[in-house]
Amino acid sequence: MTVASGGPVFPSRGALRPVDPRRVRITGGFWAQRQAVNGTATIEHCRTWLDRLGWTGNFATTGTGTARRRGREFSDSEVYKHVEAMCWESVRPGGTNYDRQLDELTAMIAGAQAADGYLHTAFGRPGQPERYSDLNFGHELYCAGHLIQAGVAAARTGRARGLPDVARRVADHICDTFKDDDRICGHPEIETALVELFRVTGDERYLDQAARFVERRGHRSLPEHEFGWRYFQDAVPVRAGEVFHGHSVRALYLAAGAVDVAVETGDDALLAAVAGQLDRTLARRTYITGGMGSRHLDESFGDDFVLPPDRAYSETCAGVATVMLAHRLLLATGDLRYGDIVDRVLHNVIATAVADDGQAFFYANTLHQRTATEAVPPDREQLRFGGGPRAPWFEVSCCLNNVARLLASLGSYLVTEDDSGVQVHQFAPMTVELDGTPLTVETDYPDGGSVTADRAVTFRVPAWAHGTAPSRDGDQVRLELPMKPRWTFPDARVDATRGCAAVEVGPVVMCAESVDQEDGVTLDDIQVDTSVAPEANAVKGRLIKPVERDWPYQSQNENPESSDPIVVTLVPYHRWARRGPSTMRIWLPTT
Amino acid sequence: MTVASGGPVFPSRGALRPVDPRRVRITGGFWAQRQAVNGTATIEHCRTWLDRLGWTGNFATTGTGTARRRGREFSDSEVYKHVEAMCWESVRPGGTNYDRQLDELTAMIAGAQAADGYLHTAFGRPGQPERYSDLNFGHELYCAGHLIQAGVAAARTGRARGLPDVARRVADHICDTFKDDDRICGHPEIETALVELFRVTGDERYLDQAARFVERRGHRSLPEHEFGWRYFQDAVPVRAGEVFHGHSVRALYLAAGAVDVAVETGDDALLAAVAGQLDRTLARRTYITGGMGSRHLDESFGDDFVLPPDRAYSETCAGVATVMLAHRLLLATGDLRYGDIVDRVLHNVIATAVADDGQAFFYANTLHQRTATEAVPPDREQLRFGGGPRAPWFEVSCCLNNVARLLASLGSYLVTEDDSGVQVHQFAPMTVELDGTPLTVETDYPDGGSVTADRAVTFRVPAWAHGTAPSRDGDQVRLELPMKPRWTFPDARVDATRGCAAVEVGPVVMCAESVDQEDGVTLDDIQVDTSVAPEANAVKGRLIKPVERDWPYQSQNENPESSDPIVVTLVPYHRWARRGPSTMRIWLPTT
Repeated sequence: MTVASGGPVFPSRGALRPVDPRRVRITGGFWAQRQAVNGTATIEHCRTWLDRLGWTGNFATTGTGTARRRGREFSDSEVYKHVEAMCWESVRPGGTNYDRQLDELTAMIAGAQAADGYLHTAFGRPGQPERYSDLNFGHELYCAGHLIQAGVAAARTGRARGLPDVARRVADHICDTFKDDDRICGHPEIETALVELFRVTGDERYLDQAARFVERRGHRSLPEHEFGWRYFQDAVPVRAGEVFHGHSVRALYLAAGAVDVAVETGDDALLAAVAGQLDRTLARRTYITGGMGSRHLDESFGDDFVLPPDRAYSETCAGVATVMLAHRLLLATGDLRYGDIVDRVLHNVIATAVADDGQAFFYANTLHQRTATEAVPPDREQLRFGGGPRAPWFEVSCCLNNVARLLASLGSYLVTEDDSGVQVHQFAPMTVELDGTPLTVETDYPDGGSVTADRAVTFRVPAWAHGTAPSRDGDQVRLELPMKPRWTFPDARVDATRGCAAVEVGPVVMCAESVDQEDGVTLDDIQVDTSVAPEANAVKGRLIKPVERDWPYQSQNENPESSDPIVVTLVPYHRWARRGPSTMRIWLPTT
Repeated sequence: MTVASGGPVFPSRGALRPVDPRRVRITGGFWAQRQAVNGTATIEHCRTWLDRLGWTGNFATTGTGTARRRGREFSDSEVYKHVEAMCWESVRPGGTNYDRQLDELTAMIAGAQAADGYLHTAFGRPGQPERYSDLNFGHELYCAGHLIQAGVAAARTGRARGLPDVARRVADHICDTFKDDDRICGHPEIETALVELFRVTGDERYLDQAARFVERRGHRSLPEHEFGWRYFQDAVPVRAGEVFHGHSVRALYLAAGAVDVAVETGDDALLAAVAGQLDRTLARRTYITGGMGSRHLDESFGDDFVLPPDRAYSETCAGVATVMLAHRLLLATGDLRYGDIVDRVLHNVIATAVADDGQAFFYANTLHQRTATEAVPPDREQLRFGGGPRAPWFEVSCCLNNVARLLASLGSYLVTEDDSGVQVHQFAPMTVELDGTPLTVETDYPDGGSVTADRAVTFRVPAWAHGTAPSRDGDQVRLELPMKPRWTFPDARVDATRGCAAVEVGPVVMCAESVDQEDGVTLDDIQVDTSVAPEANAVKGRLIKPVERDWPYQSQNENPESSDPIVVTLVPYHRWARRGPSTMRIWLPTT
């Protein structure tokens, strides 16, 4: 299995063709800085914690059955995502070479594989639960899926030699084991992994098995659980769904796998079903940041228009998964508008989730922080549900390595080709080696709105820039996006933001953070004046003086007394919580 | 230990004296009906499920250590609350006699008690975890507390002979075991139980131990857990707290125990601290229904003014606990306004939680149901977190027996005495045997606002009836409460209800339920006109026609097109979800 080309998503057909990420060099600006930090600090940080907590060690010791295994059922997947991130990073133009670490971990992983191909450090050995004895939460096929994705990345980058064969033996075991029954894994992931392995190997068994997993879902074959079958997307068949529901990361991973199956099997009905579900999810169940999933309890989508900014969940991994899904639909359909949600998620979820030093992370990305965050010491694992600040690690630490693999392979999400030319979806200064004419893009987006390409390309024009058209100037194509700050208002059916407005600048959602406000300005008492155009970092408003009462429900709809006009200072949402404890809000009540 | 008088809360001192519940007969109306259903159908329903699930059987079988124990760590407490409910019901004027069942269960419980007094069916026997090995979630002292409360009820009613001695041996064991260390139970309850046992026995060891448990709390002695110490009220000492926080039922039970300790030890500072915490909780963290606790994940209070109606938690048990706490503060301080929150909780949480047949229950009492509820079959245990309709039972089934014991003893919450006379706090038609002149109250509250007493009494005047004063007419005292439907508006800081109003009639919160609306009226599209006074069961409004868009955030704050005027039909919130699947909302967006 020697391929050594391609990125994370390389369909064999579709409207647009992806570009090998090693041919895309981000030359500066917003994402180059983040890729650099990711490629060194974040990846090394992750390895430190994986070793400290024993999650890598699980592979070395469980072979003997004597050592006590560490971590949750899904900890293996973190090692696999870490390996995947290092593969992409090692071939990224300007990236860091991790060959030594990849070879070391590959040997460790290979050593833990059973003779029949099965590989999971928490099941099947003496003193452990039986294989596949906890389909709801065992995460066995989920972990296998991430191993296969790592193996695919190894094959496409020519790194981590030996890992593609380990992955293939895992996949063969799964195809043998799950061919003829109705079992599925509580957490989707295996579907997209098997399709990508088919794309690398050409072996249709993997595609067939992925298709079976997609079709089996939705028939309540998983054991009953208090979260209900909808949590697992096992209540409604994939092609019969109306809108994404249940656990948001599960829903989005499943949808990505369904798109992969649909593309490779030419199943237009399945493709249209998932595309429709994403459309309706974007229209009714997505935060202004592009974040998905509003419930803390079961990490799930809420009902339509239930999008409270307070304690918004908006898990970082759901952001990664949204990028995965939208990119697949972009490639399949050629519909450029899918780039809009990628743009929004990258600048408002992914960019928000990671600390400047690349060593602390948000698990959940709330849109409103009423009680000041508290600092987490750099050596301290954080509790997932704290709703607090960025933390170095979590017991459920899926988001860190997920962001790392996305940022290391970000080059593959920016530009595509088809027979008629080149499309630029995401705006970053970059050089792209194309078979014909190479491409150079210059821009300081999102700080500025000018984007120029030195050859003919099609630019995505974001929906917020409607009416804007690129212009041709000799060999150059230029796009001038309107970056004037703008007021944005929510649909009347979003109860939680009624009477509020937000400010956006290009793709960037702004917020008010307490550390920027004048003395005496409490964020929960501000009202802003939307009759005045917002400035880049400030809006006009006033401060209400709430009457403190014994009971907060009154027979008069009093307008509380308000202050003289004040200036409310704004910063990009992705910049919040970087300057000490603070409160924050995106949605601002209007006067 | 022969007492045979008193109700659930009988302090030895305080501003007001409670009345023995067996001297209070509710003669008709709203609560007589509910007491009748509770005293037969609900109590029998609970016994059926306790037996079916093996929770009673645990007492019979664990003595041998051979049978597999059933249910969660706190299932014993359900048997104890069931026993307590039957004690009160058996002496309630017009109540049902459960002596046979009480004797049977008492023998079963006594048979499971260890030689040293310890009693819990899930710990300490062969094959079970060690005693007190899981202080966070073992619920051992919590269960002991409910056993002691049942023993106190047995002593005060003269029922369940033998149970008071079982309870006392449990309490002695606890005093011996926990006298000299810093351990507390993850779920408060033992505090109030030990004080009540002191009140029955006069043995100060119980009071001292209760005081120690109260003072120990707040020093992070419990093991760390992902919900944090605030969940367990173990982050801040009780007397240093600002507002109730963490798990709502835990917080309220602890507060009730702290009031009990403060009253019996004359600790005015502790009493004032808890009273202040309740004041601030009512002002900032309580739903219009009187419900407390907004978070599903950890069943906790949200931050100040975070009270989203969508997926409101408002656990039924938190309603019971609010009544317990407010009644204690009423007795301690003589401040009649504590009756207001009792009134509100009874009519909007307790009355809502129970089905008409007394055999199905809400665990959580949401204020907004966007997706139609689904019926739960009468033999089907429901998942606690479903957010669905009333269900016959839950895996965590605390609410059912809690409501049963409250309703069976409701007579003790209506009237008090002091040296100067009699106070009527809750309005129901009733006769009360008092040492001097008996009292008869006539009213059809909450359907009507006239309340008459046939002798001199002090009436509580609810805050919503401000300006109303009782009048004297011969021997009669009459209160005419204004029952005209009224608009109610939320504090501007409650983000989730901005731009909304609700309708209240007396103590009753109204709601719009889908089954009452005309064809084509979708609850999430209504807007109401608050310039027109509400009628008893209807308000005027219009229907907006939302524009369906790809993305719900727009640069224009468009007023969606709206319909001709419509009538929005209202019903009391406590009547909702009784006529098939429906959607519902209390807070109505205004035009």
